[in-house]
Amino acid sequence: MSVFDKIAPSAADIEAAAKRMAGVAVRTPLINAPVLDERVGARVFLKAETLQRTGSFKFRGAYNRISSIPPERRSAGVVAYSSGNHAQGVAAAARLLGMRATIVMPSDAPRLKRERTLALGAEIVPYDRNTEDRAAIAARLVAARGATLVPPYDDPLIIAGQGTIGREIVEDLGQLLLEPEIVVVGASGGGLAAGISLGVKLRVPSAKFYTVEPEGFDDTLRSFASGKREANARMSGTICDALMTNTPGELTFPINRELIGAGLTASDTQVAAAVRFAFEELKLVVEPGGAIGLAALLAGSLDVKGKVVVAILSGGNVDADLFAKLIS
Amino acid sequence: MSVFDKIAPSAADIEAAAKRMAGVAVRTPLINAPVLDERVGARVFLKAETLQRTGSFKFRGAYNRISSIPPERRSAGVVAYSSGNHAQGVAAAARLLGMRATIVMPSDAPRLKRERTLALGAEIVPYDRNTEDRAAIAARLVAARGATLVPPYDDPLIIAGQGTIGREIVEDLGQLLLEPEIVVVGASGGGLAAGISLGVKLRVPSAKFYTVEPEGFDDTLRSFASGKREANARMSGTICDALMTNTPGELTFPINRELIGAGLTASDTQVAAAVRFAFEELKLVVEPGGAIGLAALLAGSLDVKGKVVVAILSGGNVDADLFAKLIS
Repeated sequence: MSVFDKIAPSAADIEAAAKRMAGVAVRTPLINAPVLDERVGARVFLKAETLQRTGSFKFRGAYNRISSIPPERRSAGVVAYSSGNHAQGVAAAARLLGMRATIVMPSDAPRLKRERTLALGAEIVPYDRNTEDRAAIAARLVAARGATLVPPYDDPLIIAGQGTIGREIVEDLGQLLLEPEIVVVGASGGGLAAGISLGVKLRVPSAKFYTVEPEGFDDTLRSFASGKREANARMSGTICDALMTNTPGELTFPINRELIGAGLTASDTQVAAAVRFAFEELKLVVEPGGAIGLAALLAGSLDVKGKVVVAILSGGNVDADLFAKLIS
Repeated sequence: MSVFDKIAPSAADIEAAAKRMAGVAVRTPLINAPVLDERVGARVFLKAETLQRTGSFKFRGAYNRISSIPPERRSAGVVAYSSGNHAQGVAAAARLLGMRATIVMPSDAPRLKRERTLALGAEIVPYDRNTEDRAAIAARLVAARGATLVPPYDDPLIIAGQGTIGREIVEDLGQLLLEPEIVVVGASGGGLAAGISLGVKLRVPSAKFYTVEPEGFDDTLRSFASGKREANARMSGTICDALMTNTPGELTFPINRELIGAGLTASDTQVAAAVRFAFEELKLVVEPGGAIGLAALLAGSLDVKGKVVVAILSGGNVDADLFAKLIS
């Protein structure tokens, strides 16, 4: 590996994250379903981060970051901005570590995500996704309180935390004497993609990765093409509420460009079909943004015939009303 | 063990079943969720048979039974009666083995279960649950075609197939250096309860089992009390459509009386709360009958404080309309 050797987390960073998380994070199962294999024509494995603490992968990075805060800085608490899954991850990690958490959250975040964040003991500061800058609001809170900012993705400890998912995928496939050949992963800020691609490719360099983004929110795909960080035209307007970050991360993008470099998109219709498939055939609750990798496989957007394929079910925090609509 | 040594499957029968099923049945994960542990005050493990082929445990027994049919009898096919989950298990197993399957199914069976059975290539013969005798209809079909009857529970090979679940529970807990202390399992005909209690107690005799039945359909509980096979007053009227068998099995009852002997009930309200909890907190789709063990734990019907507790999520085949109603 090359340019990003200086910035990307190392294998040792991911090992350290796995140690910190042992007995705290759930070692989520890698699920295989014959009905999905037959449908896709490949050996498909689903990394069910829906079953992670707080219902999404975000707990991993948050816990790795927050548990690394030095003791003398812990009483001032943590601040984060998030549309919902990172919020819950930060709130849960802070509570486990006895710290105060404040979350800057869009006022149109799904009700369930808001309620679950509050239930985890965090304070919520709402903002308008279309007119206000969440990073600026968070920065003011950090300055006023001396708190620690927990960024959603652009942080080596966050990326290393998500990297433990890649490590587990390689280990669990190894038990079956398999190696991942193709991995599809949703991309928003790119922390999950960067972490997993590092975690997998440090052990299995031949694994081929694809990011998947909602149609109209394909900043990562266009950034791969242009070689620089492109932005989305819109700030809202997909059922994938978890995948609306405006542009790839400063730290995550160079990692993802080097390790992944190939992107796909999925339409809301394809995502809805994947959520419905997961309900009917897999008996798993997956939120739209969490099902986008599965959506790309079911839509046949990629030739995976005969391969060992991994898709990340990154979260399951979906409002009951929306879920009922999607499965009917 | 005693009287039932002559009738109950042995440890060798369960091992043989596990061998037959290897690479065919899904080795379902044993799921632990911190949010559930905190809620119940115990270390709770959920055996997610919802993730089994066909969405319920029934595939195991069906495959073990049907794959044991001698070659010369296979062309005449199999016949089964079932409200839905056994139907799918039999249909899927028969298809994998290249055999014809005919299912006698109540005309009020959930639509999803009927459709999924048809999609697996089986023929369905409908009957009226309140006025017709499904066993008699099946017997006529068997006689007319020379087919093999695949009973839903009263068969040593069916029980041994479900027993592989108990074997996996003990193995997976062993990986964590734990042993099951309390196991709660739904009961209808009693095949799952008999299989799992055998599979577990042949290895961990100290494990304590409880059956759970819907209120008003507690034939097993009353049979434990009276020492003989009691019947339910009603043939329909619970949301647990999978748990309406009228009376404990002739073969399963003596096994369950000896190995379990203690029963609980759960109300439809408690079951609905468990289905909702599984959706919101665990991100799992569980059908009402499949959630009845979890329902008993969440309702606090049993003192499990500090124990290693296993509940079986036995199936996830629930109509989208009903599921939407239950989670809202």
